[in-house]
Amino acid sequence: MALSTQGYKGTRDFYPPDKRLQKFIFGKLREVVESFGYQEYDAPLLESLEIYAAKSGQEIVSEQLYSFEDKKGRQLAIRPEMTPSVSRMVAARRQELPYPLRWYSIPNLWRYERPQAGRLREHWQLNVDIFGVEGLAADFEIILIADTILKSFNSTDDMYSIKINSRRLMAKLLEAEGIKGQQQPIAMRYLDNYKKLAGEKERNDFLKKATASAEQAGKIYGAIEAVAGKSGSLQAAVQNSQDSRALRELLSMLKDSGVNAVIDPFVSRGLDYYTDIVFEVFDNHKENNRSMFGGGRYDGLVGLFGVEPLPTVGFGMGDVTLQRFLDLHGLLPNLKPETDAVVILIGDVFKAASEMVAELRGLGARLAVDSSGRKLDVQLRSAVKSGVPFVIFLGSEEIAGSNFKLRNLKSGEEMVLATRQAADTLNSRR
Amino acid sequence: MALSTQGYKGTRDFYPPDKRLQKFIFGKLREVVESFGYQEYDAPLLESLEIYAAKSGQEIVSEQLYSFEDKKGRQLAIRPEMTPSVSRMVAARRQELPYPLRWYSIPNLWRYERPQAGRLREHWQLNVDIFGVEGLAADFEIILIADTILKSFNSTDDMYSIKINSRRLMAKLLEAEGIKGQQQPIAMRYLDNYKKLAGEKERNDFLKKATASAEQAGKIYGAIEAVAGKSGSLQAAVQNSQDSRALRELLSMLKDSGVNAVIDPFVSRGLDYYTDIVFEVFDNHKENNRSMFGGGRYDGLVGLFGVEPLPTVGFGMGDVTLQRFLDLHGLLPNLKPETDAVVILIGDVFKAASEMVAELRGLGARLAVDSSGRKLDVQLRSAVKSGVPFVIFLGSEEIAGSNFKLRNLKSGEEMVLATRQAADTLNSRR
Repeated sequence: MALSTQGYKGTRDFYPPDKRLQKFIFGKLREVVESFGYQEYDAPLLESLEIYAAKSGQEIVSEQLYSFEDKKGRQLAIRPEMTPSVSRMVAARRQELPYPLRWYSIPNLWRYERPQAGRLREHWQLNVDIFGVEGLAADFEIILIADTILKSFNSTDDMYSIKINSRRLMAKLLEAEGIKGQQQPIAMRYLDNYKKLAGEKERNDFLKKATASAEQAGKIYGAIEAVAGKSGSLQAAVQNSQDSRALRELLSMLKDSGVNAVIDPFVSRGLDYYTDIVFEVFDNHKENNRSMFGGGRYDGLVGLFGVEPLPTVGFGMGDVTLQRFLDLHGLLPNLKPETDAVVILIGDVFKAASEMVAELRGLGARLAVDSSGRKLDVQLRSAVKSGVPFVIFLGSEEIAGSNFKLRNLKSGEEMVLATRQAADTLNSRR
Repeated sequence: MALSTQGYKGTRDFYPPDKRLQKFIFGKLREVVESFGYQEYDAPLLESLEIYAAKSGQEIVSEQLYSFEDKKGRQLAIRPEMTPSVSRMVAARRQELPYPLRWYSIPNLWRYERPQAGRLREHWQLNVDIFGVEGLAADFEIILIADTILKSFNSTDDMYSIKINSRRLMAKLLEAEGIKGQQQPIAMRYLDNYKKLAGEKERNDFLKKATASAEQAGKIYGAIEAVAGKSGSLQAAVQNSQDSRALRELLSMLKDSGVNAVIDPFVSRGLDYYTDIVFEVFDNHKENNRSMFGGGRYDGLVGLFGVEPLPTVGFGMGDVTLQRFLDLHGLLPNLKPETDAVVILIGDVFKAASEMVAELRGLGARLAVDSSGRKLDVQLRSAVKSGVPFVIFLGSEEIAGSNFKLRNLKSGEEMVLATRQAADTLNSRR
C-alpha cells in the first residue's frame, strides 16, 4: 500500500513559492517591530500542560489543546499560544532583565479546531510584548506597532478598524450589577461572542453552557442587559463612565500618531489573563468582516511563576489571518525565486565549469547547475518551468574564453559576459 | 502554588542573545545553500505516524518518537526528521515540479532521547536535498555544500573530516557472505555502531538485540569478520573492490573542488532509507571527536508514496551539533543587539518626542523608547544593561531644535545631531 501524499488536516505544505511569501511577510514583521526596539526570543514547542491550565481560558485547554503524556508521565502540550511561555521565560530572569523589556517572536502554534477560512490547526503568530511599563505609553505603543505593520504592507485606514476597550472598566460596570469573581471572565467571554449569538435563546444557551447553571446564566444575562439599559446601550455605558478616561486618552494619543481607533464594549478577548485595556483589529473587507487579531494588557501572568508581578502589554497576529487580509485587499506582491540562473552544461565540461560556477557564486550569484544529463531542450524547458530569470550556457567555447553566455528568459536576449559583468547582470534583476 | 519557570527537559529557551546567534547561523546556512540554487520549503510539524514507520529505522519509531492519537483516532507524530515529509511533498507534485529539484528547509524536530552534549530533544536541522539526478554530480554537490557551509563559518580543513562510503558496495560484500534481505539493514546499523562497541561480546549483544535471534546475530557477526578477513581489513575490502570505482571518482571530484574526504567502511548512517553513497562529517576537536552530521542517496523514498521513484541525495545538519562545533573551535562571533538606541525622554515631551522618533525610525533606526516613567539614572542604567550602543536624550531643548542628543555608551562621547545625521551615525555602528 502506497503512503498518502496528503498532509495532516488543517495544516499547510509550504512549497517554495508559499515559503517565499511567508518569509517576505515575516521579514516585514521583523523590520517593523525591530524599528521599535523589540528583540526576538524563542521558546520550546512543547510545554508543561499546567502553564495553559492556569490562565489561557477553558475553551483552549479543554477543547483545543494537543496534549499528551511523555513516557515519564509528564503532562505536555504543543503550545497553542506563546504568552504563557514568554511569561515563564521573563519570570525565570525577573531580576536580571533590563526594563522596559521589548520582546517579539514568530512561533509555530497549534490549536485543535475545525479548519476554516483564516483558522487552521497549525499557524504562526507574531507575538509582541512590552514588560515593565504601567502607563498608557505601553498600550499606545503596542497598538501603534499593530497599525504600523498593516501600513508597512501598504494597507490603508479604510481596510481595517481598530477597536479598543477596557476589561477593568467592564468589570466595574458588571460588579455594580452584582457580577463578581469567577462570573466575570465568563461574562467577558459572553461579550466576546455576543455579536455572533443571534438572539435571546442563543445568548442564554451560550451562558448556560459556560456557567453550567441556569441561575448563573440568567444572572449574567440580566446584568449585561441592565448595564446597557441604564445608559441606552453598552456603548453609551462605557463612553459615559467616569472610568473611561484612560480609554479616551489612549484614543487621543493614537490619533496624534495617525492611528484611527474606536471604543467598542464588545471587544474583550477570549483569554482570561487580560486585565485592562484590550484591542482588536477587524478586517473591513465585505468577504471577511471579522476580527483578525488583537491583544491587551495582562499584568498578572508573570507573577503566576512565583515572582514579583510585572505590568505587560502585548498582541499576537496570526499568519493565516494576515495573509488572508493582504490577499483580499490585493496587497500580496509577486516575489522572484531565490535562484538567479540555471546553468546548462554543453558537452563534457563538468570539471572546468564547476570552477567557473564557483567563482561566479563567490560574487553573490545564486546558481543551480543542471547535472541531470538530460537533453539540452529538456534542460531548457525545466529551467523555464522553474521560474528563474536567466539560463547560463557553459560549453568549451565559453570556458576557453572564461565567459558566461546568459539568456534572459523573459526577453530572449543573449549576452556573452565575463565573470564580474555576469554577476552584476544577475544581481541587477533581483 | 507558583508555576515552575523551568522549560521541558531537553529543550532550550532562546533569550534574545541566543536567538540572535541562531539567526546568524541560519542566515549563513541560507546564504550558502541559496548560492547553489536551493529554494526553501516547509512542512507541518505533525505528520501521520505511518510515514516514519515505513523507513526511518526501528530505533526512531519505537523508542525516539513523540507520537499520540488525536480525538478522531489518527496516529500522529511530531516529526523526528524532515526526509519523509519532503518525500511526501515531492511525491504529491511528482509530475509538475521542475527537475533537478533543489530544496532546503530548517525545520524544528523532536526526538525523545536522553539529553546530552550535542543532542537535545528539540533541535533545528538544515535539510538540503536534490531530486532527479542519477549521477555522481548530485552526491558531489551535496558534499560540496556541506563543506562550503563549514568553511563559510571560517572553519579550516584540519577541524573536521569528511568520510564517505557506499551502502550498495557494502551490500554486495555482505551478500557474497550470505547476508540478504532484512539482514542487510541490520548489518548496516551494526557497522554504524561498530566503533562504539568495545569487543566481541558487546558486538554480539548488539546484534542479538537487533536481530532477536542468536543464530542471525552469529551469521551477521561472522559475515563482517569474513569480509574483513579476506582483504586484511574492512577498509581494504572496500578500497580493493571493483565496485568502489564510483567512490574513488567521487573523491577525485571533491578533491578538484578543494574538498578533503576519505573512504570509511564504517560510515553507513543509522537510517534505513539510504541506498548508495553515504557520508558523514566528523569533528576533529579532541573534546568532541564524533560524527556531527551526514547524508547520502535515498532513491527509494519518494516512490513509497505511490509515484514513479526519483533519485535523491541529501543531508541534514543539526543546529545543536553545529553550534557546539563552532563554539569548540572558537568560530562563534560576537553579535550586536538588534536595537540601535534607547531613547530617554526628559520632561513631559511624549507627544513631540513620538513624532521625532517616528521620523528617525523612518530612516531605518531601531529605537526603544523608555516609557517607564522611572528616574533618569535608572533609565540610563537599564539602557547600559540592555547592551545597546547608544542612548538618545530628548528634552524640550532638543525638540525645539529638532535635534537628537546621542551618547555613545562605549566611548561616552556625546553628539547633538539633526535627524539624517543621527540616522547615519546609528546605522554606521551596526
